Amino acid sequence: MLINCVAYQAGRKLADIQPQEIRGYLTRPECFVWMALKDPSETELMEMEAEFELHALAIEDARHGHQRPKIEEYDDDLFVVVHTLEFVGKEIVVGEVDIFVGRNYVLSVRTHAEKGFKEVRARCEREPELLRHGSGYVLYALMDALVDQYFPILDALETEFEALEEKIFAGSVLGRENIAALYALKQKLTTLKHAAGPLLEATGKLYGGRVPATCHGLGEYFRDVYDHLTRINQSIDALRELVVTAISVHAALATMQQGETTKRLAAGAALVAVPTMIAGVYGMNFRHMPELDWVYGYPFVFMLMVVLDAFIFWRFRKANWL
Amino acid sequence: MLINCVAYQAGRKLADIQPQEIRGYLTRPECFVWMALKDPSETELMEMEAEFELHALAIEDARHGHQRPKIEEYDDDLFVVVHTLEFVGKEIVVGEVDIFVGRNYVLSVRTHAEKGFKEVRARCEREPELLRHGSGYVLYALMDALVDQYFPILDALETEFEALEEKIFAGSVLGRENIAALYALKQKLTTLKHAAGPLLEATGKLYGGRVPATCHGLGEYFRDVYDHLTRINQSIDALRELVVTAISVHAALATMQQGETTKRLAAGAALVAVPTMIAGVYGMNFRHMPELDWVYGYPFVFMLMVVLDAFIFWRFRKANWL
Amino acid sequence: MLINCVAYQAGRKLADIQPQEIRGYLTRPECFVWMALKDPSETELMEMEAEFELHALAIEDARHGHQRPKIEEYDDDLFVVVHTLEFVGKEIVVGEVDIFVGRNYVLSVRTHAEKGFKEVRARCEREPELLRHGSGYVLYALMDALVDQYFPILDALETEFEALEEKIFAGSVLGRENIAALYALKQKLTTLKHAAGPLLEATGKLYGGRVPATCHGLGEYFRDVYDHLTRINQSIDALRELVVTAISVHAALATMQQGETTKRLAAGAALVAVPTMIAGVYGMNFRHMPELDWVYGYPFVFMLMVVLDAFIFWRFRKANWL
Amino acid sequence: MLINCVAYQAGRKLADIQPQEIRGYLTRPECFVWMALKDPSETELMEMEAEFELHALAIEDARHGHQRPKIEEYDDDLFVVVHTLEFVGKEIVVGEVDIFVGRNYVLSVRTHAEKGFKEVRARCEREPELLRHGSGYVLYALMDALVDQYFPILDALETEFEALEEKIFAGSVLGRENIAALYALKQKLTTLKHAAGPLLEATGKLYGGRVPATCHGLGEYFRDVYDHLTRINQSIDALRELVVTAISVHAALATMQQGETTKRLAAGAALVAVPTMIAGVYGMNFRHMPELDWVYGYPFVFMLMVVLDAFIFWRFRKANWL
Amino acid sequence: MLINCVAYQAGRKLADIQPQEIRGYLTRPECFVWMALKDPSETELMEMEAEFELHALAIEDARHGHQRPKIEEYDDDLFVVVHTLEFVGKEIVVGEVDIFVGRNYVLSVRTHAEKGFKEVRARCEREPELLRHGSGYVLYALMDALVDQYFPILDALETEFEALEEKIFAGSVLGRENIAALYALKQKLTTLKHAAGPLLEATGKLYGGRVPATCHGLGEYFRDVYDHLTRINQSIDALRELVVTAISVHAALATMQQGETTKRLAAGAALVAVPTMIAGVYGMNFRHMPELDWVYGYPFVFMLMVVLDAFIFWRFRKANWL
Repeated sequence: MLINCVAYQAGRKLADIQPQEIRGYLTRPECFVWMALKDPSETELMEMEAEFELHALAIEDARHGHQRPKIEEYDDDLFVVVHTLEFVGKEIVVGEVDIFVGRNYVLSVRTHAEKGFKEVRARCEREPELLRHGSGYVLYALMDALVDQYFPILDALETEFEALEEKIFAGSVLGRENIAALYALKQKLTTLKHAAGPLLEATGKLYGGRVPATCHGLGEYFRDVYDHLTRINQSIDALRELVVTAISVHAALATMQQGETTKRLAAGAALVAVPTMIAGVYGMNFRHMPELDWVYGYPFVFMLMVVLDAFIFWRFRKANWL
Repeated sequence: MLINCVAYQAGRKLADIQPQEIRGYLTRPECFVWMALKDPSETELMEMEAEFELHALAIEDARHGHQRPKIEEYDDDLFVVVHTLEFVGKEIVVGEVDIFVGRNYVLSVRTHAEKGFKEVRARCEREPELLRHGSGYVLYALMDALVDQYFPILDALETEFEALEEKIFAGSVLGRENIAALYALKQKLTTLKHAAGPLLEATGKLYGGRVPATCHGLGEYFRDVYDHLTRINQSIDALRELVVTAISVHAALATMQQGETTKRLAAGAALVAVPTMIAGVYGMNFRHMPELDWVYGYPFVFMLMVVLDAFIFWRFRKANWL
Repeated sequence: MLINCVAYQAGRKLADIQPQEIRGYLTRPECFVWMALKDPSETELMEMEAEFELHALAIEDARHGHQRPKIEEYDDDLFVVVHTLEFVGKEIVVGEVDIFVGRNYVLSVRTHAEKGFKEVRARCEREPELLRHGSGYVLYALMDALVDQYFPILDALETEFEALEEKIFAGSVLGRENIAALYALKQKLTTLKHAAGPLLEATGKLYGGRVPATCHGLGEYFRDVYDHLTRINQSIDALRELVVTAISVHAALATMQQGETTKRLAAGAALVAVPTMIAGVYGMNFRHMPELDWVYGYPFVFMLMVVLDAFIFWRFRKANWL
Repeated sequence: MLINCVAYQAGRKLADIQPQEIRGYLTRPECFVWMALKDPSETELMEMEAEFELHALAIEDARHGHQRPKIEEYDDDLFVVVHTLEFVGKEIVVGEVDIFVGRNYVLSVRTHAEKGFKEVRARCEREPELLRHGSGYVLYALMDALVDQYFPILDALETEFEALEEKIFAGSVLGRENIAALYALKQKLTTLKHAAGPLLEATGKLYGGRVPATCHGLGEYFRDVYDHLTRINQSIDALRELVVTAISVHAALATMQQGETTKRLAAGAALVAVPTMIAGVYGMNFRHMPELDWVYGYPFVFMLMVVLDAFIFWRFRKANWL
Repeated sequence: MLINCVAYQAGRKLADIQPQEIRGYLTRPECFVWMALKDPSETELMEMEAEFELHALAIEDARHGHQRPKIEEYDDDLFVVVHTLEFVGKEIVVGEVDIFVGRNYVLSVRTHAEKGFKEVRARCEREPELLRHGSGYVLYALMDALVDQYFPILDALETEFEALEEKIFAGSVLGRENIAALYALKQKLTTLKHAAGPLLEATGKLYGGRVPATCHGLGEYFRDVYDHLTRINQSIDALRELVVTAISVHAALATMQQGETTKRLAAGAALVAVPTMIAGVYGMNFRHMPELDWVYGYPFVFMLMVVLDAFIFWRFRKANWL
């Protein structure tokens, strides 16, 4: 589905144009076309392949989808794949934006992603002195917007983790659902890592040494994107490590809790078993058991039981078993 | 066993030829021979060594088999080893394809692998403008087909893992067979990693900087293979890490379950032991036990037992031990 | 909030100046302005951006805060982000110092950090022969002071860890609070690592090969900072590893302690259950039980119980179960 | 002990010579001397040092032994240390072969190693066209033979591991000896790794870029050795990881088994305790217990016990506790 | 404290000299001064700083102490920090040797280290042809001696570990002190690693590519030190991994032992509980219990108990629970 298609010259919007007009604008000097597609049909993709003379392998990747994030050079053109991450309920939905960038065009193809680039376009049009840099600047603006979408995801996961942490250490009872939640969190972090990790590596090639032609003079901008990605990746790694530690800590706490259960079981058993044993003794049917005939035999034995239990209770309480 | 042997010129098939005719075609300009063997005999390999002037060390590797995946250069010729993976039941069978590539020939030797390259050949013959690139393109087509066979294997393992995950978290009972299944899965992933890992590294040398002569001008194609391998390797690593986490999570859950068992044991024991103790007391044979003579002694004690058990039950239920 | 703003020439203080005077001093030869802000307002930052012609991306980072430590070059200017760590009670508070350095100015912007740079300024003014190096030397002095603030933090964490170690190995009872404390310690170490790790990497670029213009001739000084950071990072890594080991060791000890509890439970149960069984036997109501009629039946059985328990006690004690 | 000492010229054996004749042959063109020592005495080593003008540090290493595998260059000469591994019973015995290689000599010094190089020499002499390459080819032949001795060791360890795996997963009882065996296996793998790991790294310098003079023109041969070492190292690493996983899996299985034991204990206890409790009730000595006087009281209560136990049995069996 | 101060020329000792004479000897050609200090006072260090014109940052490091091992270049001079490790009882005491090396002087400053360099000096003076290399050779001799002191430490730790291993696998009882000992061993290994790890990295810069002027022509000697350090580091890493594995193996064994304890507890409970239950049944007070009146009722029931217990014992023994 065509979202919009605009021609720019010297940083300023020329006109909203039709796909069939593209070719005309591509040849004008200092002019570039910025086109946005959403969940495009086979036919639309093939039209674009012809219009912008895209490389067959790149367009094939866009058609298949489910690419890992990457930045590939085809001669002077760039093919960029970025994952979009959106929360739907508590689940993360992974979408994909494929960006084709040439000297005089930018084509973004968005699939399975709700959020579009209206604001990016608006911001670019508000700053004509920057947009004058051409298609490379649009690529920066798109990547910057896409990468910044990872921060709220990361924040949400960090908040989720902190809530879990509190539950583990504060709560007196360790539930199995904690483990399941930690495990689910780890998987979400993996999803985020798969989006941000390969992109970090790829973005590193857009500034510094040899840089693709379209990105010339924008080194500081792409370094900024790179810096954001570094921050995200570092936070992911730290959080992942904490999750793993939390799982093992949880296991350690569970072992200790079981130990406490066993101690209580032992203490409780002693409290019941000792009087039972004494009662058993005086339940024996020997003819000659002097105590049985004593008037105060029964109260005495009863008191004995109580005293013993009190002693046992005191001992176990002192040893912290009860 | 000879599968087929075809001579190509300028991207088009010339003729099915006999092994003894090879030498004649090798000298023609822009012509190359593409030959396929399956589980070849010692003699066949020696014939090919002579026919194509293959390097002794390469042919020795092909004869021994069980090589790790690799791409070796012998002057201008390439020797490529790729593992094939095929499911037989629930087990993965590892086969091997050895590919010898020179300026004017491609020889593929397939061992322990069911699936052949009929479709690769057909696709190549359908695209003469690409096949015109020569033997290097055939190498690309073969590698592309071989690498793409790893994806269904990976998918199957991912599906298997998800089923296991569900069993672990949903099921109320943790079986030992889960652990065994996770362990078996980890081994299959190792098999897949051994196929895809070294190949990734080797393929990285077929594009970019210094590239073997036969692969000139095909950089973007081999980068595509490289990209697929990166994706596969990344997925394998992620899945392997998840399997390890799942094993430790399983152990943590088992520990917790055992804790619950102990708690129930303790609660159940209390329910039985307390009435037993009381009964013991009134089973004592003291002559002077006033309660024994009461008319309602028995019902009273019986009710006492019931009330105590109800209290115990309520307490343990509240503490979530029952 | 403006802390102070001083102009220096040839290593000596010229005058305390007002922000609006800055521009005049920036053009003087061998002269530089060193300005310090604390938790600056939006307006102050924008004034400084104009005054020193700072890069928009750098000033944006300073405005947002929560940057990871880094050193970025904008043409000949440097933008440095360093974390400050301060103990407030037992918690570590992370602040941030952003330092903008150009040929003829140093601007430090401190946020959420109590401790200022009065002493750094004093030290610099005491050593005019070194301050003559210009703004680069001020950068060194600031970084040196900031990095040296990590050492007491690290020492405090090491002391905390040693106290925990003692508790784990010496104490006979393993408490859950140990685990929680180890976990909290690990998190503090992560905070410290996040401050020191990226800075190490960034500082490595300030000496040796290609070095930013402002740092020329100060290689040995920045290497000294780098060396301190290496030491800190190494200590953090070692301590983190020890914390992880301590958690697993704690779990191992807890498992062993539980084993001991079970053994004691078993031994205690045996001591009570055996006499109970014997008493049960002589509580049977068979008409023909010769022992019951013996005069010494009861003392004999009583002694039997005592002897058996003594034997059981001895056996379990020997096996170290009691 | 001198094993043998032979002079070769142009790939062909000239003569078995005496140590004192060496000097004469070293000066002949295209001639080299190949000498083999076994567990040499101090004197023999000093003689050789003088004869071949070996470097003092290299000869000192050979004298001390217990070197890690390495390849060192002393000007144009090479000093190579390779570990030999031999099974003696179930233990691996580590020996050492030190090889000194110069333009016109090869000296191998074997210590604590049973197996010699008779077959290597025989193979070399059978292929004069290869031996014509000179001392470098002898080095290749020796290293190839030594590295190939690691394969059967690796195979034996893999077989041992598979047997252990079967025991762990098939056997219903987990023995402590499994853990001990896994641990011992891990140590043997470490021994193997210490032999193969450093050698891999060192061999990588014998082909490709800058290569020692003696190895010129033999790149493909040394790459073959390197390839074998890569295969071995990869297998070792994979196996080591599996062993570690197996240990943790074993622990997980043991925890589960203990859980099952506890469940059975609980179920068994219930089966015995409930009838005991009922019996206790009817063992009370209340004067007014109507059931006691019923004619069918006893059979009824007995049936009650049986029915309750049947019910308990059924419940626990259903819950898989029995 | 001044240990000694000697001037050398062309490899031979000229004279023991006084600190104030140093300056005179430093200007002589081919002459260098080798001075050794132990736990020097502030004043001594400042004197040396003036005498040898040492860099302020280096001397500051020496004054503070507690540096990590490193080799720093200050123009043509080297500043080397090496840790000394000495056993005092079972604890490792870390000392420090700071070595300042220039073209014509060597100054070693030893703190917290018992063992001095008398033997190193003696060895150097015995080999004038090597000492002729100048101050660089002295540096090598000192480093060689210092590094070789790590071997006995490592051997002691390996011996300690082997003793622990035996205790874990042979002993039938697992004590908590094993865990504590393993943990202490790990810490000692960390101490050793902190001494040997950074030094390895630093020493690697003293041979091969660009080398400090003072070390020219000594490449093979420093490579030898590097090789020793590689060996030590490799052994430390291997041992550390083994210790970690041993801890987890210990935990696994403890879990299994606990399982065995539970099994025995269950078996023992059954042996006692079943006769108790039977006794309970015949302790019931039903009027109509025919067995009670039988003459052989009691012996029969007694035999029944014995037979049942024998059966239970046999079953549990067969199942390996007893």
